[in-house]
Amino acid sequence: LEIGAYEAVRALDEKLHYADRAEIMEELSEELRQTYFELLDFEEASEVLEEVGSELFSELIEGMDEEKRSKVIDNMSQDDIVDKLSGLTEEKQEELLSYMDEDTASEVETLLEYEEDSAGGRMTKDYVTLTTEMTIDIAIEYLRQNAPGAETIYYVFVTDEAGILTGVISLRQLIVASPETKISEIMNENVISVYDDEDQEEVARLFSKYDFMVMPVVDKEEKLKGIITVDDILDVIEEEATEDIYKFAGSSDLEIYEEDDASWLRVVRSVRSRLPWLIITIFGGLLSGSVVARYQGTLDANAALAMFMPLLAGMGGNVGTQSSTITVRSIAVGYVEGKEAVRTFFLEVATGFAVGLVCSVIVGLAAMLTNSSTVISLIVGIAMFSNIVTAAAIGTLVPMIFKKLGVDPAVASAPFISTTVDITGLTIYFSLATVLIGKWMI
Amino acid sequence: LEIGAYEAVRALDEKLHYADRAEIMEELSEELRQTYFELLDFEEASEVLEEVGSELFSELIEGMDEEKRSKVIDNMSQDDIVDKLSGLTEEKQEELLSYMDEDTASEVETLLEYEEDSAGGRMTKDYVTLTTEMTIDIAIEYLRQNAPGAETIYYVFVTDEAGILTGVISLRQLIVASPETKISEIMNENVISVYDDEDQEEVARLFSKYDFMVMPVVDKEEKLKGIITVDDILDVIEEEATEDIYKFAGSSDLEIYEEDDASWLRVVRSVRSRLPWLIITIFGGLLSGSVVARYQGTLDANAALAMFMPLLAGMGGNVGTQSSTITVRSIAVGYVEGKEAVRTFFLEVATGFAVGLVCSVIVGLAAMLTNSSTVISLIVGIAMFSNIVTAAAIGTLVPMIFKKLGVDPAVASAPFISTTVDITGLTIYFSLATVLIGKWMI
Repeated sequence: LEIGAYEAVRALDEKLHYADRAEIMEELSEELRQTYFELLDFEEASEVLEEVGSELFSELIEGMDEEKRSKVIDNMSQDDIVDKLSGLTEEKQEELLSYMDEDTASEVETLLEYEEDSAGGRMTKDYVTLTTEMTIDIAIEYLRQNAPGAETIYYVFVTDEAGILTGVISLRQLIVASPETKISEIMNENVISVYDDEDQEEVARLFSKYDFMVMPVVDKEEKLKGIITVDDILDVIEEEATEDIYKFAGSSDLEIYEEDDASWLRVVRSVRSRLPWLIITIFGGLLSGSVVARYQGTLDANAALAMFMPLLAGMGGNVGTQSSTITVRSIAVGYVEGKEAVRTFFLEVATGFAVGLVCSVIVGLAAMLTNSSTVISLIVGIAMFSNIVTAAAIGTLVPMIFKKLGVDPAVASAPFISTTVDITGLTIYFSLATVLIGKWMI
Repeated sequence: LEIGAYEAVRALDEKLHYADRAEIMEELSEELRQTYFELLDFEEASEVLEEVGSELFSELIEGMDEEKRSKVIDNMSQDDIVDKLSGLTEEKQEELLSYMDEDTASEVETLLEYEEDSAGGRMTKDYVTLTTEMTIDIAIEYLRQNAPGAETIYYVFVTDEAGILTGVISLRQLIVASPETKISEIMNENVISVYDDEDQEEVARLFSKYDFMVMPVVDKEEKLKGIITVDDILDVIEEEATEDIYKFAGSSDLEIYEEDDASWLRVVRSVRSRLPWLIITIFGGLLSGSVVARYQGTLDANAALAMFMPLLAGMGGNVGTQSSTITVRSIAVGYVEGKEAVRTFFLEVATGFAVGLVCSVIVGLAAMLTNSSTVISLIVGIAMFSNIVTAAAIGTLVPMIFKKLGVDPAVASAPFISTTVDITGLTIYFSLATVLIGKWMI
């Protein structure tokens, strides 16, 4: 790069948002990255660092000179620093902590101790608090001075002298109130908070229910410990949805990778996540096979029965997966509680009934067209209907029972349900066939 | 309820958040609901109305006297009104619009014309704008007067005289700047906006990428038309994830119901959403059946082959579903683009390879234990391995190809993939069996 090109890059760059710059950085070679990064002043550098992944963060921090580094770290949002550090090994964490001043390092260390997916792990300590006794004009002046370091000043929490959370006030309220009013007179005392060990999914649910911008995090003594802002919650909601989807497919959140993870690591994680479910499928499949073996006599005598095995097993699996997916998701977003659960069960079975009627007629007719034995067609049709209703019932009940037992309903994954339904479906099919063929064909 | 009880309810109630009050209202009988609702002043009533469903909204609005109604509507957030109205029939919409003053009614009507899931459908017109020529002190005074009606004043957009969006300024910047500075001097000119016809999913992606609190919506001439706040985006992200999950199970967003939908309506929607995929499954199943029929000779000669059919089909289906689910989700969250697609494909196939090795050994050994013919065990093992690798490849490729063709990748749903993989799996199994048994057993 020549000097002219530098300037061109700079000029272009100033129009770009930091998130876009970070994306460009990830694409560059290490050398170009360093060169480019050195062009940024400390404010720009810290904004870009907030947006990059853990690995790149550590690489860039290490490449800086000491003075710039301390300024950059000071300017970064604390919860972002914690986020990057938690993606690194302990040695790396120690090393990076040693670059920070004592206060920041100890705050970051406290935050690192929380579970990553708890309220404590998501919160930041970059906030300002007001006290009940302040007047509005003093409070505004206080905010003016302390605003630069804080994550948000649009909603400010109020504590008493002991640090116990007592209220919340919006900047909007502060601005429209008369200067000599006391905070305690206009603050909202019914402030909804979360405990620091609360699961992030529950925190996200509260944000979404109450349309919050920010929420206070307290310890068991109601002392204010930190705040969580809504921008972090967007990520949580997306992450939790991805986790549910992965679990559903018979995998796990282990597979949610960072873009800079090595290829072999991703394969190892994928195999580790998926293999357990597949091994369960193997045993389920062998069980289904033993059902077939048990009715080998019926099958040998009526070779046409084999032809409809894949169809029956496949339909059962799909109907079961539909019911269980929708039930698991409905539980996750809070639709299925109390008497709603009973209603949902009956609605799913009713759906199974309707779907079963349509499908069994189609399949029965198709069987007659391809095979022409009325008895076999009848057997296939009746088995299809019973199979679909059973699959819908199993798909709905299993996640509900798991939920009741305190097991994650998402364990009722597609592989689990379709394997279970394969076994019931084949049993229904062959026992029906054995009985009816015995009755009607002799 | 006696007077004493009234007071108790009121006292309890004042501590509750509006979202909780709305939840309680949904549970009450119609009569109690009206009684309770009449106890609220117009500010409380409007907050509660923002939180209830469409049906209840229309019931409560109709039950109010004219004076309170106009105050309540005036006090409600406009995007919430639009949200409720869009859930009602056109006649109901007309009726409710007639209760509003002319300005509000015409703004609401404009918003109702946008697609519900577009930026225009999600935006509100309750906002204040500043102009470039204002000084800070005038701007603050202007905000102070206009704040009560606005959805947010923490980030305020700046327009020129023609109404064209030219910048953004935060309340924080306004408060720390000196009073005689001009807006144009300190505003941020690189404001990221969305067009009014942009899809809500893309809007959510931008919010999440840039950590925005609010985004401006413009028309094709860059004129500011409305704003979208982050609280509405939380719902969008959750809704889109649910939609993806439902599509994945071979259903559709039609099934995302409102809590007060009638039971029969939910069943009809479920059947309509799921049946198409199940009918595809039927034809896929018949095709699989025709594969079995084609190899009936091989099957008759080696009855033990039938026993492993459910296992092979089931494993293929599950591996294919895992790969396709993870690929569809990775595409949705933006992980799989350009050369990442090629890498993802190879990683999935590598995973299939590893998983296939482990599973084929287990299945081969299990076959030897239960059946004892070495040839059949070998056939089952080899078929299992090929089947898993093929399933992983199909599960990854199909959503990518759909994406390339401009089809929603989520169409590669679990029923679709498992049906496809059933056919390839059985073909591999029986053709291998026919060839190998012919070679080794004669």
